[in-house]
Amino acid sequence: MKSRNFLPHVITFNTEKMQDRELESNLMQDFRNVWHPCTQHKDFESITPLMVERAEGVYLFDEQGKGYIDAISSWWVNLFGHNHPRLNAALKDQLEKMAHVMFAGITHQPAIDLASSLVKLSPENLNKVFFSDNGSTSVEVALKMSLQYWQQTGSETKTRFIYLKGGYHGETLGALSVCGLDIFRNKFEKVLPKNLEVEGPDCFRCPYGLNRDSCSAECFDPMEEALAEKDIAGVIIEPLVQGAAGMKIYPPVYLKKLQSACDSHSVHLIFDEIAVAFGRTGSLFVSGALGLQPTFLCLSKGITSGYLPLAATLTTNEIYSAFYDDYSSWKLFIHSHSYSANPLACSVANETLTMLSEDGFLATLEPKINLMKQMGQQIFEESKWCGEFRQQGMIAALELVQDKKGKKSFSLENRMGYKVFLEALKRGVFLRPLGDVIYFIPPLVINEDEIKKMMDTARECIAVVLD
Amino acid sequence: MKSRNFLPHVITFNTEKMQDRELESNLMQDFRNVWHPCTQHKDFESITPLMVERAEGVYLFDEQGKGYIDAISSWWVNLFGHNHPRLNAALKDQLEKMAHVMFAGITHQPAIDLASSLVKLSPENLNKVFFSDNGSTSVEVALKMSLQYWQQTGSETKTRFIYLKGGYHGETLGALSVCGLDIFRNKFEKVLPKNLEVEGPDCFRCPYGLNRDSCSAECFDPMEEALAEKDIAGVIIEPLVQGAAGMKIYPPVYLKKLQSACDSHSVHLIFDEIAVAFGRTGSLFVSGALGLQPTFLCLSKGITSGYLPLAATLTTNEIYSAFYDDYSSWKLFIHSHSYSANPLACSVANETLTMLSEDGFLATLEPKINLMKQMGQQIFEESKWCGEFRQQGMIAALELVQDKKGKKSFSLENRMGYKVFLEALKRGVFLRPLGDVIYFIPPLVINEDEIKKMMDTARECIAVVLD
Repeated sequence: MKSRNFLPHVITFNTEKMQDRELESNLMQDFRNVWHPCTQHKDFESITPLMVERAEGVYLFDEQGKGYIDAISSWWVNLFGHNHPRLNAALKDQLEKMAHVMFAGITHQPAIDLASSLVKLSPENLNKVFFSDNGSTSVEVALKMSLQYWQQTGSETKTRFIYLKGGYHGETLGALSVCGLDIFRNKFEKVLPKNLEVEGPDCFRCPYGLNRDSCSAECFDPMEEALAEKDIAGVIIEPLVQGAAGMKIYPPVYLKKLQSACDSHSVHLIFDEIAVAFGRTGSLFVSGALGLQPTFLCLSKGITSGYLPLAATLTTNEIYSAFYDDYSSWKLFIHSHSYSANPLACSVANETLTMLSEDGFLATLEPKINLMKQMGQQIFEESKWCGEFRQQGMIAALELVQDKKGKKSFSLENRMGYKVFLEALKRGVFLRPLGDVIYFIPPLVINEDEIKKMMDTARECIAVVLD
Repeated sequence: MKSRNFLPHVITFNTEKMQDRELESNLMQDFRNVWHPCTQHKDFESITPLMVERAEGVYLFDEQGKGYIDAISSWWVNLFGHNHPRLNAALKDQLEKMAHVMFAGITHQPAIDLASSLVKLSPENLNKVFFSDNGSTSVEVALKMSLQYWQQTGSETKTRFIYLKGGYHGETLGALSVCGLDIFRNKFEKVLPKNLEVEGPDCFRCPYGLNRDSCSAECFDPMEEALAEKDIAGVIIEPLVQGAAGMKIYPPVYLKKLQSACDSHSVHLIFDEIAVAFGRTGSLFVSGALGLQPTFLCLSKGITSGYLPLAATLTTNEIYSAFYDDYSSWKLFIHSHSYSANPLACSVANETLTMLSEDGFLATLEPKINLMKQMGQQIFEESKWCGEFRQQGMIAALELVQDKKGKKSFSLENRMGYKVFLEALKRGVFLRPLGDVIYFIPPLVINEDEIKKMMDTARECIAVVLD
């Protein structure tokens, strides 16, 4: 008989919520058997996780029926709100035909349609779509395709990737090897493939004393230097917004310089648009909106509007051609995941792309972007704890600091962002921060009243915690 | 305007199938825009992929309505057949509530139920469940948890993993670093984390001249030696069946020795049951059926009965405890995927576990296993091209050889297995081989007539290609 009595400590449940014995018992079972991602479970001794029973539009509902605005779109994935009739219908329609079939030696309409739409909507040079299941694997596929391309085209020494300090591209060991954030990688440093970290833009605390709206990416020099090294296979970057670093926003001019430098050094340019594509910045793809042509484009998160795991790595015919040969050449790309191009996920993605591409949809974001800007700017101006308000389309962030002028951060141990999160939870907004950066990535369909509630709550909670 | 005219070569379509212009156009679009997993696209110049429109039970149907037995369960994932009313209903029920919500700071009933069931059904020592999206990530999670555990418990030098020659555990770079099959890793060798490959069982060509049914795993010696090295964090293994190596089957005694040796060397034992769990070998888990207690158990594939991507890494309270501390200790496991514990996938998995656990279900496999054994044995005995028939529960394989006595393989360039596959396709069986190993992993619900058709077709096709 399995012992299920292990509890490292007795949990003190948040009694306010504990009217319900069943909920208590469910949460106890969660504590006993579930290991949540990026979670210190000891936190649950004082605060249990939010038990979400259903979701509708921008709201998550707990078992007592209390609603919470999903202010970060369930880890930046949801675009059209929860429980959307069109997305539900797309999923059910496909379910009637088949949930899944393997994707080697077999193809199916949902995947062909999705690949064709992605090719049509993305930058002109991208023609081939390789499917996988999550952002990490879409990055692993890009890294592996790049490495194998160089192996098969006479540049066997090109085996290192450049990544930016603050960059985040997933957490499998390959993806982690191009991560520029110590907290994600420091326990695994000894086993990570060796790549090259480069100091990138840091606009909030610009060492050149410049402003992201008017500079010429003077901070590009370290990248230029790194690209001169001989063994560089590619550069991987989150265009415009470094998400996990705390929604750090930098200007397009950096990307334009990067494209040009990669071209002249014959180095692959890998755009990780996992977090920023599909309308988040106001356009379908950052690369497309800026007229850039990366060699690889990694996509996931919003691709199914937050319904199902799916990812895609887009690349060029030039890359593909280096793998196209007689079977006996063994040049094929040997990489697979069992659920590659899952038809259910592809069908929801197809409906997502249809909805995103419908006339006028992206234009509906303009007033929302403006409202977020106006309110965010006002919170920044009024609060001495806000070091910066920054925004790129539907992505906005307030960085909390203990000294506004000196831009000095709080010690991480104070967990100011976490405290703001707990206050916001009481008030019906799910606003999980990145350290002390309070950020907003709501579903694109959020309305203006909901934006007001979301941002007013943030203002109020910052004051409650810090004033 | 994006050029979509690139075709490296003109495709010669399989005219037999080309009654339909629309199909031709769809396949052309597939060829233009899709990069399939583990596929040499030049093969499509002579044979286009099978365009599957719908699926039902053990059958896949193409656009002309022709049915194909899904003899390998769509890459070993499907258990209860396609389009199963109970699994469809589970998915639809959950869809009414919510498709997805993030899994940090939030929990939900489908994940709690699934974690609890997995804990209840798996070996006694396993108490915690970490969710991810595919087999590769479930392995990455196990490797990372093991590494971090040793970092946090004073054994910082334990950073290498032992894996078996022929072992396969996924294709992200971390998973690939414990892969013992050259064709998967040779293009990436330069960047892979360094681990330790060990000669393992090779029962078909046993160097000790022994038989898997009666030996004492004399081949365990190299493992014993490797475990004596100081820096070993863990051993990863596919219990009983090395899948990608060609369904190589070895006896339980090897695993029993391994458990005991890992225990005495204080090394983690990682069971990758991605392919073999959930009834494939006749029991729910190999580890459980053999009374073994791995430190980590990696699951995916059958967990949703072939509906949706989902994976889980199970581990012990001892491992978990090393991560449980005040937040400021930074001992938490910082790893996440956006769609972790996707509620739709968890709901289908819950129904899958219910169906697998129902009284008598696993017993229904017995006559099927026996029929496969009897037919497989007969093919082996009658064909001079079959070097071995081997079987573990509902997993069976015939290894083609050019010299039965000497067990000599064909040169891979001959692609004998692939030729058998093409013949079987004509006859309505989808039987994608592993090199020259023709294998059968049908949905568990396959009936005896379908088994006969599947195996008779294999017999016939082997004869057509080789006699």
